[in-house]
Amino acid sequence: MDQKIINISTSENKQMVNITDYVKKFAKEANISDGKLTIFIPHTTAAVTINENADPSVKQDMLYSLKKISPSYKEFSHMEGNSDAHILSSIIGCSQDVLIKDNKLVLGTWQGIFFCEFDGPRNRRAILRID
Amino acid sequence: MDQKIINISTSENKQMVNITDYVKKFAKEANISDGKLTIFIPHTTAAVTINENADPSVKQDMLYSLKKISPSYKEFSHMEGNSDAHILSSIIGCSQDVLIKDNKLVLGTWQGIFFCEFDGPRNRRAILRID
Amino acid sequence: MDQKIINISTSENKQMVNITDYVKKFAKEANISDGKLTIFIPHTTAAVTINENADPSVKQDMLYSLKKISPSYKEFSHMEGNSDAHILSSIIGCSQDVLIKDNKLVLGTWQGIFFCEFDGPRNRRAILRID
Repeated sequence: MDQKIINISTSENKQMVNITDYVKKFAKEANISDGKLTIFIPHTTAAVTINENADPSVKQDMLYSLKKISPSYKEFSHMEGNSDAHILSSIIGCSQDVLIKDNKLVLGTWQGIFFCEFDGPRNRRAILRID
Repeated sequence: MDQKIINISTSENKQMVNITDYVKKFAKEANISDGKLTIFIPHTTAAVTINENADPSVKQDMLYSLKKISPSYKEFSHMEGNSDAHILSSIIGCSQDVLIKDNKLVLGTWQGIFFCEFDGPRNRRAILRID
Repeated sequence: MDQKIINISTSENKQMVNITDYVKKFAKEANISDGKLTIFIPHTTAAVTINENADPSVKQDMLYSLKKISPSYKEFSHMEGNSDAHILSSIIGCSQDVLIKDNKLVLGTWQGIFFCEFDGPRNRRAILRID
């Protein structure tokens, strides 16, 4: 069991942070040729996802649409005013599996791994684990 | 391989049921110091998620918004009339990983584990597994 | 570590393809009595989910609603014009765990496993792995 915590400082209220290189480095250091890595986000207003790592406008479009999917309804009762972020956290999800084969992450040509901030800016953590 | 089925009776059409204590108890009984637990929901109109375990108004706001995200369109053709629930099941997801470290679930300060009922009230099951 | 890549040719722009039998066959051939299988989709405009395997109208209703959830906004800036598909990929998710017990997939009565095409028609792949 190898585990590592990475710290992420976000600068926007809604933001996708590319963490692919951190995950690759962790997998390399763990020196596992074949296995499965878990990324777990210990926050309730953030998430993790895999999506396009080439054109940065994809992130921009994704955040635009996610805000439409989960608006801040005036009917919300949670006093902190960030219920929209809690909803996005559950829609995108707080964990992601990544396969490792022949000492490399199994990712498609265009795939990268993104920490998703939905209630920033904040100091956040992601837990990387190989079991 | 330790496996346990927990039974959940829901009382509402849409409801989030806190199952954190059941999962903690299962992990404790399995006596695994470090590993990974899977929660799998064997239903197509329910789901499992991790979200805020402190203020109950978060659950209320989440369900409010999820109903807006997946309304019952008049164009739906499935005769049972619960297509909105099938959609939410796939959006939230029917499985969730939970890490275990030093004999404890790895959860953030505010995180709890919730069974999500989207077509209740019904008698439901969640499968807990450590591989 | 058993791994298999299955090839999927989609014929529609948005489509759910039942891959349950492929996954069952892979699990049988791997001859694992108890364990966990991962389905990973190496694409950024596709996904994998578990949902109803009985009435095909459920798939139709799900795709109808998912298009409403993620429309093609005129404000999108990604030049390829498929941002709606990237968003659905992250909402549904590019990986899915399936438990195996007593040489069988652990699935509920109505559950099947579906490859989700959101930007087809295309030739796609799904990676099946047992760790």
